[in-house]
Amino acid sequence: VPKLVDHDLRRAEIAQAVFRLVEARGLEALTIRDVAVEAGWSTGVLAHYFQDKDELLAFAFVRVAERIRQRVDAIPPTDDPFERLRAGLLELVPLDDGRRSECQIWFGFLGRALARPGLAAVQSALYAEWRERLELAITEAKEAGLLRADLRPADEAAELAALVDGLSLQALFAPDEIDPDRLRRLVEARLEQLRG
Amino acid sequence: VPKLVDHDLRRAEIAQAVFRLVEARGLEALTIRDVAVEAGWSTGVLAHYFQDKDELLAFAFVRVAERIRQRVDAIPPTDDPFERLRAGLLELVPLDDGRRSECQIWFGFLGRALARPGLAAVQSALYAEWRERLELAITEAKEAGLLRADLRPADEAAELAALVDGLSLQALFAPDEIDPDRLRRLVEARLEQLRG
Repeated sequence: VPKLVDHDLRRAEIAQAVFRLVEARGLEALTIRDVAVEAGWSTGVLAHYFQDKDELLAFAFVRVAERIRQRVDAIPPTDDPFERLRAGLLELVPLDDGRRSECQIWFGFLGRALARPGLAAVQSALYAEWRERLELAITEAKEAGLLRADLRPADEAAELAALVDGLSLQALFAPDEIDPDRLRRLVEARLEQLRG
Repeated sequence: VPKLVDHDLRRAEIAQAVFRLVEARGLEALTIRDVAVEAGWSTGVLAHYFQDKDELLAFAFVRVAERIRQRVDAIPPTDDPFERLRAGLLELVPLDDGRRSECQIWFGFLGRALARPGLAAVQSALYAEWRERLELAITEAKEAGLLRADLRPADEAAELAALVDGLSLQALFAPDEIDPDRLRRLVEARLEQLRG
């Protein structure tokens, strides 16, 4: 009987190993060898999945996006589209250690991706999808009369994505000044300005 | 007569060489050797100024901030604090090739700085100063009755810095979707929402 390998499970385990290492030591020093040791496998097994560090980082970046999407999808349903928008945005900012390490992977990846077309394409696709999801959520809230009538949902989607990215960056570097309470308040204050 | 070296001039020339290289090839592949060749000096001379790539990047990051500050300070004076705020913010986003390469250095640096306390301290100091300058500009515009009376200048400073960073990131990765015209419109639309 051939030995069956559950590749999805392996990928999930690799992602967990990457997240643990980034939390402990940051992204820059991450190597495929470290990830192999952390996951308890040989470097050879890892090489089966990733050709180089860039592929490993792209994988971690996409996993972060999936993790966030799962949390957003798991938000208890509510009839209030404004509340859904609020809760969704708060899943993206570093309000706890888990989200902090997600943000570290995110911006570490973006910094590298700027100069690498292959990685940049992964970013572009994810952000285009993110803006679309936000646009949909904004349109729903606007049609329910909960947001200003003059809002352009596509533009506001880019603005809210920018807000979340920019505030997360500031919170990562100045965790005392932009602490979780203030971060939450800043996101909510912005949304209040959009109320109809 | 001892040979006099104008260190400020040299630093300015080094910065120009870094900017040209980043525009041509991106940040990731940048080496001290490349910069020496581009500036027309020996690696030994560069080693006199920078111990390693991180020091070179911190230097380039600080020069970008200085360049932007000089442009903001050179904006023709106006009595309208709202207009000053608008013009200042537009100096920060990638509306042309020069500002695009500034943004590439900026976010490339931030990606690396996340995992390096020495670099992170440079970021924190610069951002704290940036938020202060924005807070001052917002307070002026608010006191002139040009912004909503319920705005908290310190919070709005963090929000506008976040907007500029986040939109710049999106524009770098999706220059066709977030082109200079749209980028300008997004910054201005946000400011219009803050009008009193």
